[in-house]
Amino acid sequence: MLFQVQMTVKLPPDMPPERAAEIKSTEKAYAQELQRTGKWRHLWRVAGSYANVSIFDVKDNAELQEIVSNLPLFPYMAIHVTPLCRHPSSVRDDDS
Amino acid sequence: MLFQVQMTVKLPPDMPPERAAEIKSTEKAYAQELQRTGKWRHLWRVAGSYANVSIFDVKDNAELQEIVSNLPLFPYMAIHVTPLCRHPSSVRDDDS
Amino acid sequence: MLFQVQMTVKLPPDMPPERAAEIKSTEKAYAQELQRTGKWRHLWRVAGSYANVSIFDVKDNAELQEIVSNLPLFPYMAIHVTPLCRHPSSVRDDDS
Amino acid sequence: MLFQVQMTVKLPPDMPPERAAEIKSTEKAYAQELQRTGKWRHLWRVAGSYANVSIFDVKDNAELQEIVSNLPLFPYMAIHVTPLCRHPSSVRDDDS
Amino acid sequence: MLFQVQMTVKLPPDMPPERAAEIKSTEKAYAQELQRTGKWRHLWRVAGSYANVSIFDVKDNAELQEIVSNLPLFPYMAIHVTPLCRHPSSVRDDDS
Amino acid sequence: MLFQVQMTVKLPPDMPPERAAEIKSTEKAYAQELQRTGKWRHLWRVAGSYANVSIFDVKDNAELQEIVSNLPLFPYMAIHVTPLCRHPSSVRDDDS
Amino acid sequence: MLFQVQMTVKLPPDMPPERAAEIKSTEKAYAQELQRTGKWRHLWRVAGSYANVSIFDVKDNAELQEIVSNLPLFPYMAIHVTPLCRHPSSVRDDDS
Amino acid sequence: MLFQVQMTVKLPPDMPPERAAEIKSTEKAYAQELQRTGKWRHLWRVAGSYANVSIFDVKDNAELQEIVSNLPLFPYMAIHVTPLCRHPSSVRDDDS
Amino acid sequence: MLFQVQMTVKLPPDMPPERAAEIKSTEKAYAQELQRTGKWRHLWRVAGSYANVSIFDVKDNAELQEIVSNLPLFPYMAIHVTPLCRHPSSVRDDDS
Amino acid sequence: MLFQVQMTVKLPPDMPPERAAEIKSTEKAYAQELQRTGKWRHLWRVAGSYANVSIFDVKDNAELQEIVSNLPLFPYMAIHVTPLCRHPSSVRDDDS
Repeated sequence: MLFQVQMTVKLPPDMPPERAAEIKSTEKAYAQELQRTGKWRHLWRVAGSYANVSIFDVKDNAELQEIVSNLPLFPYMAIHVTPLCRHPSSVRDDDS
Repeated sequence: MLFQVQMTVKLPPDMPPERAAEIKSTEKAYAQELQRTGKWRHLWRVAGSYANVSIFDVKDNAELQEIVSNLPLFPYMAIHVTPLCRHPSSVRDDDS
Repeated sequence: MLFQVQMTVKLPPDMPPERAAEIKSTEKAYAQELQRTGKWRHLWRVAGSYANVSIFDVKDNAELQEIVSNLPLFPYMAIHVTPLCRHPSSVRDDDS
Repeated sequence: MLFQVQMTVKLPPDMPPERAAEIKSTEKAYAQELQRTGKWRHLWRVAGSYANVSIFDVKDNAELQEIVSNLPLFPYMAIHVTPLCRHPSSVRDDDS
Repeated sequence: MLFQVQMTVKLPPDMPPERAAEIKSTEKAYAQELQRTGKWRHLWRVAGSYANVSIFDVKDNAELQEIVSNLPLFPYMAIHVTPLCRHPSSVRDDDS
Repeated sequence: MLFQVQMTVKLPPDMPPERAAEIKSTEKAYAQELQRTGKWRHLWRVAGSYANVSIFDVKDNAELQEIVSNLPLFPYMAIHVTPLCRHPSSVRDDDS
Repeated sequence: MLFQVQMTVKLPPDMPPERAAEIKSTEKAYAQELQRTGKWRHLWRVAGSYANVSIFDVKDNAELQEIVSNLPLFPYMAIHVTPLCRHPSSVRDDDS
Repeated sequence: MLFQVQMTVKLPPDMPPERAAEIKSTEKAYAQELQRTGKWRHLWRVAGSYANVSIFDVKDNAELQEIVSNLPLFPYMAIHVTPLCRHPSSVRDDDS
Repeated sequence: MLFQVQMTVKLPPDMPPERAAEIKSTEKAYAQELQRTGKWRHLWRVAGSYANVSIFDVKDNAELQEIVSNLPLFPYMAIHVTPLCRHPSSVRDDDS
Repeated sequence: MLFQVQMTVKLPPDMPPERAAEIKSTEKAYAQELQRTGKWRHLWRVAGSYANVSIFDVKDNAELQEIVSNLPLFPYMAIHVTPLCRHPSSVRDDDS
């Protein structure tokens, strides 16, 4: 089951650079692991921003919450979730 | 080059049903043709709405405009475009 | 799997009263049938408005889309969907 | 009398973790006690967020204010209240 | 129990003047009757607009819905409801 | 001359509790004195919030500014002012 | 007593040109008469729009409502009212 | 050439009172000097707020930027600029 | 003197195609003439929309109003004007 | 390929002046270098603000992200990106 998730990062201006680097590094490892399992199906940078558009493939809402709320950057992000489903005009077998 | 395009359809309440059916049918054929060429890479329905989230893969802004403005439903849609690029944490080779 | 759905109805001012009455009657029968199957778990009127707050219990996003897009009032409603899941502080067994 | 209350939590980024843990723990006990008395009828997590959708069953506006303003997280939440009443199409005896 | 209700009227530009006059006249009689019973406690015009700020004193949300949804201008108004209760600094005995 | 004033309080999360208590206490005394003079005609709590809806009866805009800008909580509030006047359907002699 | 009033005109696209011309002509006469009496103190066009910024000098909110609601274009305008008063740094004797 | 400028001041809650007083005093002197030269034609307080509505008379956009960006409160203000010009219904010779 | 003008076109869905074609053709001629005089310095299509971003070079606000309000599509556009001036980091001689 | 980028700067009020001066100086050098290469085609100040409107000419979305995310002021700016393309009514050869 697919969800589009839009995430915009806003780090506090007074966060020490090492702390920011550490969070980002953990975030990257976590994001890559989830991509390899197939749960985080797509991850794109929004050009000109510190934001991303992602597609998650999870078994239900609870799994989405589990994954998103454990993102190391979760406390510093504005997050918008959109539930998706198959479009009647889609020709791809795997987009649902 | 990738773009996310979010489209929300709002048909005038007094459009004759045959006219609406005709536009939707032309739209479907057009969308499927573009998906087959690879230009319209993903097309998802937003659950609970008459809206979609799409990913286009075009060679530049001009081609995006060419494709989107020729959608049969173009005059009846609110459209929001987001330019995308490769995310530094992405593990997919083809998501850029 | 639960979703909160907020629906606000806006009928065109020039819709003939008989037509409006017919749509509302079909909507009511449809809504009551879905409540009896357990898919439409809660349905409340927002006081002072022509709007409702609903809780749907469906197997996935696709079923939500199927149900909502077939509402007779669907073309005349602004609809906002929020995916829900179990709250860690909930004490009810059936609220997830 | 029912109210939908939507709560979004935003803790200050510099709150010490022990302080945050303490508030959340008090909040949980308070929320569970109110659920057991039947005043806090439903409590759901919004998937992908630090937010909830709740249904309160109180005797009047004053009791709602009493309960909500005493939430330990009250100073850190954006709160949106919607008064609800029985929907004419509802089939549940207890949803009003 | 008190509610603030803010109503903004927007008549369709093509409504025949006699029809508008008739609705407004019925609305006035209905509003004055409710004021005399004490349910519609205050009714003020917002200066420079076709809008009002009202205070209703009803026994519950259901009665508010009953009263507001039966306003002759109901289909032509944007309505915003705010539940009120006694303020701890109030010195008036009857403002709750 | 009447004005509706909506005030929402947002204290800085790091304000010392004694300082907050002191401001609130001064605010309460000031609000009660103004109510007794008749300038602050109504004061209601918005249920489920740290906000109020007030009706002021002042001789002109300048007096409104004088009163509101001297509120001890003024620097910590979002304030929205709406000028009111007699509604043609009002039946109360004193609501203007 | 001064008020800033911002007015944006939106004529229905199907209003016959003669009807529009007639309303505008009446509006102009009405606006000029009010300017001569000193009630409509300033009237500026917002560059690049069908909108104006105006300053009214009236004796109270009721007079503002009387004047604005009788504008021939009143049913076709979005109107925003801001109550003004003397600024402590103003050096003009007549700006209050 | 005229511009309407709306300025809303938001001082950081932790700015020392002497520092705030100093900025405000410099701002006042600067504003009064500009009023005397005729560049800052009108300056009104928005009643019930820490905001003003101003009319500037400058030779071009560059001069507006020069004046506004040198306001001592500039870093602490939300500013909204509206270019104005003569209204065809204006009767004042100097309002353009 | 430069202004950025953002224009979004929204034709009524029931405008006859010949009428739309006629307006667009007049608009094109008018826009090209103004570009040749140098008043309409830049004109870009916003990709994926029926909108443009334009830069005008006019002698004052009045000339901007004159040009924009005479656009054949003026009654059918949402227009947003931003006054521009030389940026202190600009290296182009002609961008002011 | 062209993009309009709107940037609004918001420095934290407690940033030391030397630090702010240093960032601005680096930003200026970076902006001027990019203008000389032709990538940053236009750069205008928005009059009355700490904001700019820019036109970038880049080879794709990735290059835009590369340039914008390396701006020294990037962490302190709200940024809005609009993809542009040739307008069918443009007469300039180089505006696409």
